[in-house]
Amino acid sequence: MSIDIASEPDLNNQLILDADAAAALFMEARTANSWSDEKVSDETLQAIYALTKMGPTAFNGQPLRITWVRSSEARERLVEHMMDGNKAKTLTAPMVAVLSFSQEWHALMPTTAPHMADMLMPMFEANVESRIAAGNNNAHVQAGYFILAARAAGLAVGPMTGFNPSGVDAEFNGDSNFKSFMVVNMGKPSGDVDRDRLHRLDFDLATVTL
Amino acid sequence: MSIDIASEPDLNNQLILDADAAAALFMEARTANSWSDEKVSDETLQAIYALTKMGPTAFNGQPLRITWVRSSEARERLVEHMMDGNKAKTLTAPMVAVLSFSQEWHALMPTTAPHMADMLMPMFEANVESRIAAGNNNAHVQAGYFILAARAAGLAVGPMTGFNPSGVDAEFNGDSNFKSFMVVNMGKPSGDVDRDRLHRLDFDLATVTL
Repeated sequence: MSIDIASEPDLNNQLILDADAAAALFMEARTANSWSDEKVSDETLQAIYALTKMGPTAFNGQPLRITWVRSSEARERLVEHMMDGNKAKTLTAPMVAVLSFSQEWHALMPTTAPHMADMLMPMFEANVESRIAAGNNNAHVQAGYFILAARAAGLAVGPMTGFNPSGVDAEFNGDSNFKSFMVVNMGKPSGDVDRDRLHRLDFDLATVTL
Repeated sequence: MSIDIASEPDLNNQLILDADAAAALFMEARTANSWSDEKVSDETLQAIYALTKMGPTAFNGQPLRITWVRSSEARERLVEHMMDGNKAKTLTAPMVAVLSFSQEWHALMPTTAPHMADMLMPMFEANVESRIAAGNNNAHVQAGYFILAARAAGLAVGPMTGFNPSGVDAEFNGDSNFKSFMVVNMGKPSGDVDRDRLHRLDFDLATVTL
């Protein structure tokens, strides 16, 4: 059940992105599970973060924290906490990013939101549930930016939630208050594709106009 | 405390996006609070959704649901449930999108993930907490795609969480199991900017390499 691109609205007339960019970020990008052996440089990671960080978050809170897992030693520690079906692709990916959110993101408000820090920091300090929900939710929005930023850097991604967050946190976030929520394999894909693209919900099913 | 673009890594060498596209989606885009009177067409909404839906979600679950609030009547009902500071910009925005997630997203797995529906649908049917968490989290990832897709269509966005979700759900999601989580004003901006861009966290603060 692959996408019939021809049935899509005439995107070129509606977008300021050119067709190649729309294809690379959205229309033709595919989740990757096997990889070429091309390395991912530190400069590429910096560029991906430079794009990711610019996306808007509530209160400019930017709760996303990233652990770049490059070394074999760290990679082995990570896959201990992953579902069996995810281990091989994470061990072989050119780069792996563990995405977490800070449960103490509000503590940076004097830097990130100085115009509302006096009002909101005490509120978030007292209301832990609200602070953690905002951290979780806004870091997930940032994960969307991150995935598209990695594609903008020419990489394919393989985002996964099939791991044990408590185990990953104990292994990698032990001294912090960070909570892991997604592991993203990254690199140039091998070109092998497991299957046709899965069906996407139609406009009329997923949206309504009032 | 504005961004020093000159201190960023040399993006052009690291990206497959051209500089104009990177600026429009990430680097130069600004949250908008006041608007030109240029309308947003149905074709533009379709194009935004056509991009948004292509981003990856766990289990291809696509929990995001969108209510496009165009009419004055619906707009008036919406702002009743919003913080006072958000009402004027939502009443005057050329288009408003209420983003919700379906709590029953798993019911579409025979269409969206036929290769794992037999295994996972009963699990998500039984484990309501896990299903709702996945719906909330993946819809937030999709909100990230949506915000960048709207920018790819040449619009500015003003995403907000300053509203009463229970009130919005009673007003707009009454017969469904959808839960609202974000309201996004959309349109061509007036050009007025409230303030300099807020500070973004440095690479070395938000990331670590292992």
